[in-house]
Amino acid sequence: MGIKSKDKILEVFKDFARDIKLVVMDVDGVLTDGKIYQGIGDTHIKAFNSKDGMGIRLLQKYDLKIALLTGGSGEVISKRAKGLDIEILKFGVEDKLDALTTLQNELKIYPSETVFLGDDINDLPVISKVRFFATPSDGHPSCKLHANWIGQFKGGNGFVREFSDYLIFGKGLNPYLPLKTSN
Amino acid sequence: MGIKSKDKILEVFKDFARDIKLVVMDVDGVLTDGKIYQGIGDTHIKAFNSKDGMGIRLLQKYDLKIALLTGGSGEVISKRAKGLDIEILKFGVEDKLDALTTLQNELKIYPSETVFLGDDINDLPVISKVRFFATPSDGHPSCKLHANWIGQFKGGNGFVREFSDYLIFGKGLNPYLPLKTSN
Amino acid sequence: MGIKSKDKILEVFKDFARDIKLVVMDVDGVLTDGKIYQGIGDTHIKAFNSKDGMGIRLLQKYDLKIALLTGGSGEVISKRAKGLDIEILKFGVEDKLDALTTLQNELKIYPSETVFLGDDINDLPVISKVRFFATPSDGHPSCKLHANWIGQFKGGNGFVREFSDYLIFGKGLNPYLPLKTSN
Amino acid sequence: MGIKSKDKILEVFKDFARDIKLVVMDVDGVLTDGKIYQGIGDTHIKAFNSKDGMGIRLLQKYDLKIALLTGGSGEVISKRAKGLDIEILKFGVEDKLDALTTLQNELKIYPSETVFLGDDINDLPVISKVRFFATPSDGHPSCKLHANWIGQFKGGNGFVREFSDYLIFGKGLNPYLPLKTSN
Repeated sequence: MGIKSKDKILEVFKDFARDIKLVVMDVDGVLTDGKIYQGIGDTHIKAFNSKDGMGIRLLQKYDLKIALLTGGSGEVISKRAKGLDIEILKFGVEDKLDALTTLQNELKIYPSETVFLGDDINDLPVISKVRFFATPSDGHPSCKLHANWIGQFKGGNGFVREFSDYLIFGKGLNPYLPLKTSN
Repeated sequence: MGIKSKDKILEVFKDFARDIKLVVMDVDGVLTDGKIYQGIGDTHIKAFNSKDGMGIRLLQKYDLKIALLTGGSGEVISKRAKGLDIEILKFGVEDKLDALTTLQNELKIYPSETVFLGDDINDLPVISKVRFFATPSDGHPSCKLHANWIGQFKGGNGFVREFSDYLIFGKGLNPYLPLKTSN
Repeated sequence: MGIKSKDKILEVFKDFARDIKLVVMDVDGVLTDGKIYQGIGDTHIKAFNSKDGMGIRLLQKYDLKIALLTGGSGEVISKRAKGLDIEILKFGVEDKLDALTTLQNELKIYPSETVFLGDDINDLPVISKVRFFATPSDGHPSCKLHANWIGQFKGGNGFVREFSDYLIFGKGLNPYLPLKTSN
Repeated sequence: MGIKSKDKILEVFKDFARDIKLVVMDVDGVLTDGKIYQGIGDTHIKAFNSKDGMGIRLLQKYDLKIALLTGGSGEVISKRAKGLDIEILKFGVEDKLDALTTLQNELKIYPSETVFLGDDINDLPVISKVRFFATPSDGHPSCKLHANWIGQFKGGNGFVREFSDYLIFGKGLNPYLPLKTSN
């Protein structure tokens, strides 16, 4: 799906937004800018985004569950997740379809109630088990080929917020209202 | 307000610049690029900008008070603020309108003498208590919708300097004069 | 070689892709964004990219050998290489042609089976000993002048993945298939 | 001076390149991307660029002296300077004209033999004491107004290399020749 007007995008989101209970996200390239800042010793940094953090807060405000599924590991993601009160984290995931199915069973949430935000080939297999697959403007060509929607923002640079704003608008609510929170 | 010529922007700033005594800023996405560089252990980094730092120095040179109001916390912001001699810092602010009102009362400065630089929905409530609300080119759409002025520069990438240059020009002064300082 | 259509680029890659056994890469500006993040004490960071990491994984899946030849040194590169199971690392290389020739002799791999990804003048001498020299969109003008192909992506921002996708397509295989791995 | 063709830029550089003995640079925004990566504790990072480092090496190869004059301080700049064998460092400079004049006297180098690379208002006073003042594409408007040349590259993203390539071409030499070095 190419770039469309805001109204046409809203039509797409209105069609499914009310049904969604679970938003699953890859981390590198979706919630981060995809860069792996590697230092010596233990230094290892990922760059998240404050506006995306506000998007997570908004999804939580409307009772959506957030889960992170990543092939990576560790403390950096845990720290950011904790800061945003994201409780469902799956690290070292080699098979995302398998991990997603397990998660859906645990939470008793149907594929028709699930969206996935991914940016690379290892995210693609989940498509058969989600209602909607979204990818950022700098997602891999394979994801752009199959996604239900391609954002205008890059991973780690507003894509998660762009998605969450549309999802909330799609539910007939207003994501532009002030929110008292840290992000 | 969309992009206008430099002359038209100056008209806007001339209208209020002489009255301003207090410049209040959000931090993430305004004074930084909005990225949250998260490492392991205590590693947590924010990216400020040297030209924006010079803008802060210029505002101080002309006796404007600078205050930072942020939902975030901590040492990183304190260190940058100290480096720029910014003395008014409010951390963990959940209600920016309330915090701003308290600050204005403490300083005996009127809303008509206050500007606010913000980039997200939690900044918007202050609009009723400021003369002028400005947002960077990558501010959230909700801020762009309501701001008195949208900069051409991004947060953490020259927006604060762009604002301070216009404010000083608006006072009939010249922000292009050399300044002896660190930034 | 300027920007061409995807079909024309594929023609170029089909011509040599099946013969390639060894992919040699410079590090700064090819596998990283070329920035040298310098801190105090031991802090020294390079920014790699997760999608490029997946490209390395794909090249390995199809039994291509990966080697890094860099004028730089150290632990940062070693850590990223280890994370991606890259076993051939040559640090402190002042003469890349000499180092490449030694490596080809050790591995018993011919120049006609070798590609090199480089972005600066110190990489250029290898051209006489490789089948194909590729440079990112932000490679130095001297590399763009002599490269067999200029990517549309920047170093550390998808160039290595762009190259590996074309190489795999050029072998008549599909790099868009899901891969179970970390990256 | 606006954007010109490469030939016209070369005309400008040919006019003075042979006379130059000293290249003086500001650091933040010229040799770095202008970002101040602030962490907790002692963490403080600046982002330099590997291609700019090669530019410094090339200037040294042709016996040009390099000096860094910065209002900032410290270990981060010293480390990068040491890595590039830059021996003349002046920290905490509040008056760049005064510091430059002192340096020129010490080195017995005339203003007509000096170039300065700067990006902000505190660099501008040196103009009266240099042959040529250059600023990056993201230099402050005040510098763009007065510079002899505005690069097409940003500070910390190739501007220093762009300048050094033109300077070497201007001397009738070839900066595209391979160089054995780390950078």
